[in-house]
Amino acid sequence: MRSKGFEGMTCSVACVMGALGDRWGMLIMRDLFLGLGRYEDFRRSSGVTNATLSDRLKALKAQGLITRQRYQTRPDRHEYLLTEKGRDIGLVLMSMMQIGSQWNLPGLEGPALYLVDGSSGHKVKVALVDTETGQQVSPQDVMVTLGPGADELTRWRSAGRIRKPEPSESETGHDQRKT
Amino acid sequence: MRSKGFEGMTCSVACVMGALGDRWGMLIMRDLFLGLGRYEDFRRSSGVTNATLSDRLKALKAQGLITRQRYQTRPDRHEYLLTEKGRDIGLVLMSMMQIGSQWNLPGLEGPALYLVDGSSGHKVKVALVDTETGQQVSPQDVMVTLGPGADELTRWRSAGRIRKPEPSESETGHDQRKT
Repeated sequence: MRSKGFEGMTCSVACVMGALGDRWGMLIMRDLFLGLGRYEDFRRSSGVTNATLSDRLKALKAQGLITRQRYQTRPDRHEYLLTEKGRDIGLVLMSMMQIGSQWNLPGLEGPALYLVDGSSGHKVKVALVDTETGQQVSPQDVMVTLGPGADELTRWRSAGRIRKPEPSESETGHDQRKT
Repeated sequence: MRSKGFEGMTCSVACVMGALGDRWGMLIMRDLFLGLGRYEDFRRSSGVTNATLSDRLKALKAQGLITRQRYQTRPDRHEYLLTEKGRDIGLVLMSMMQIGSQWNLPGLEGPALYLVDGSSGHKVKVALVDTETGQQVSPQDVMVTLGPGADELTRWRSAGRIRKPEPSESETGHDQRKT
């Protein structure tokens, strides 16, 4: 069941989830990210039912995350490809892969997949990076500031994590939240 | 409606989504990440119904992502906090915030929130980093290799993005997929 109304929320998280539709949508995106593209492949990969799969493919297409392309004639056969917008979701997928691996799936000896640089073969991780210095930032040191699109609800919701203006830079530095 | 069975899949993406439950679960995690913690706050923040909210809070607690703590007696009042495991989800949330901002939410002049370093105030972004060199890696250059937890289905599913062993490092470097 795809929930309605997430797309309209003034929140990037809700917006992205609205575009994905639900967890089946996310698994289809995972499959596309890994190189699958055919209807039967999605079926096999996740065990999704025909009804759900057809619905989610239509929805992802309507959201501009995937396109449908003919790759064979007589008989016509189609495959699905990620659009540029769809490829953006890769970052969310890779974050989930990384966290799931950290959590140690029950019954597994280790991660199922590692992310690597295609050229060097070095392991790759999803990290927080200071856009000015290029240094990595620890998750608990990340705060937020309000952007031009922030509405009243966003201001209220984020109040606990908004970075305070700098009276003396060293005092406001760390996470003021309790979590 | 929380889907069943995602937790059992040998896939980190499915596992993380299984723990989150659904998109409402993700919005509750977003609220906790931003510093909210009380039942009424979650209601106000996302407009979630009482039935859904109660259910998702129980599920997130059962998954070990949140805890419930008394912060006042007479009358007893409780709040929810992220566990260490729950805080891991921050990376997924920040990835979604970043992508949603890139996509430009309809009708907004710009992003609602920016991620910043609490100390320096510099903008922070979610990026892919080479764990050996610390250099940033472009998303399309990321491939995967099989880990010890990879089962038959994972091998098949990932075949299109698995990095080939290096005959000559420079030839296998780039994304062999069509997407």
